[in-house]
Amino acid sequence: MSDATRDIETLIEMMAKLPGLGPRSARRAVLHLIKKRAPLMTPLADAMHRVSASARECLNCGNIGTTDICDICAAEKRATGELCIVEDVADLWAMERGQAFKGRYHVLGGTLSALDAIGPEELRIPKLRDRIEAEGITEVILALNATIDGQTTAHYIAEQLEGRVAVTSLAQGVPIGGELDYLDDGTISAALKARKSF
Amino acid sequence: MSDATRDIETLIEMMAKLPGLGPRSARRAVLHLIKKRAPLMTPLADAMHRVSASARECLNCGNIGTTDICDICAAEKRATGELCIVEDVADLWAMERGQAFKGRYHVLGGTLSALDAIGPEELRIPKLRDRIEAEGITEVILALNATIDGQTTAHYIAEQLEGRVAVTSLAQGVPIGGELDYLDDGTISAALKARKSF
Repeated sequence: MSDATRDIETLIEMMAKLPGLGPRSARRAVLHLIKKRAPLMTPLADAMHRVSASARECLNCGNIGTTDICDICAAEKRATGELCIVEDVADLWAMERGQAFKGRYHVLGGTLSALDAIGPEELRIPKLRDRIEAEGITEVILALNATIDGQTTAHYIAEQLEGRVAVTSLAQGVPIGGELDYLDDGTISAALKARKSF
Repeated sequence: MSDATRDIETLIEMMAKLPGLGPRSARRAVLHLIKKRAPLMTPLADAMHRVSASARECLNCGNIGTTDICDICAAEKRATGELCIVEDVADLWAMERGQAFKGRYHVLGGTLSALDAIGPEELRIPKLRDRIEAEGITEVILALNATIDGQTTAHYIAEQLEGRVAVTSLAQGVPIGGELDYLDDGTISAALKARKSF
């Protein structure tokens, strides 16, 4: 096997480590890249180098940006006193795409998990307490995933903050465009319990 | 939006162009890369640059390597007189993983398609005729996909080569480990027609 073939194999192995890609799809992606060397592969490698050199975690909230304090934390008009707690940067981005939330975020970086030995100190929970005082937060909105670990973490945070600040969480119910027949039982009973006058 | 955020968005858009990745999985992959900047993202960008600079198509067979003549075409012991015709480099790689074929390959680079105006000149078919004489090919093995376009192309090539060289094709039948219940009707009837004494 020549050096170059080994380079291609190495590239395939690296691509296969990305979430959503396995060995077979990594191979397809690399072949596609090789066929489009000039228009896609070289610019993609350049973009990766640029982001790799500049990206960093916001020291305040954990969002990803290029400065020590991210755009959202730096924006004066986002100091609304509302703080939205999310597990991961991907969730923050999802909330931002919704364009409904005007306050700031706090990215935990995971959920509490006894199995994986992840306690409050491993997450960004101590920093959360500091921020509530420093930024004059009046409402903490829990936007954690509706999984067991997510909900355990939500309960833990709510307990910690009890009496210090209002704690709310995203509503649970039927998704927009959702069909009852395809929903799980838990969602239907949650939506029934939380029913509103029409 | 800062320059850096725009860099990240650009990177996500580029990744979303890869086969097998959509906008959502591209976002997940980029977040994963950003979290693993030093161990994964920088080496991946380096590997892409290396392959982008060195990869080229073999002038003889169309395989991808780093030299004008690929390793397989250059290997004397693969001059067995057998030539395996495949649509794409991915198919060549799949055949090589099987480790059953000891001869050389010829990558067409697609299939004939009246709809897309792809005729023999657009594929590597003229070169195929040259190779049969130059390399003393005695058997051409058609390993094209079992799709309509693939089979049309196989018939076209078989006609062109009639009387000049033996033309065979991969056997069709039940895949190893395959369950009849999950096979399509065409495969079952092909396997029945080609039944062998046990």
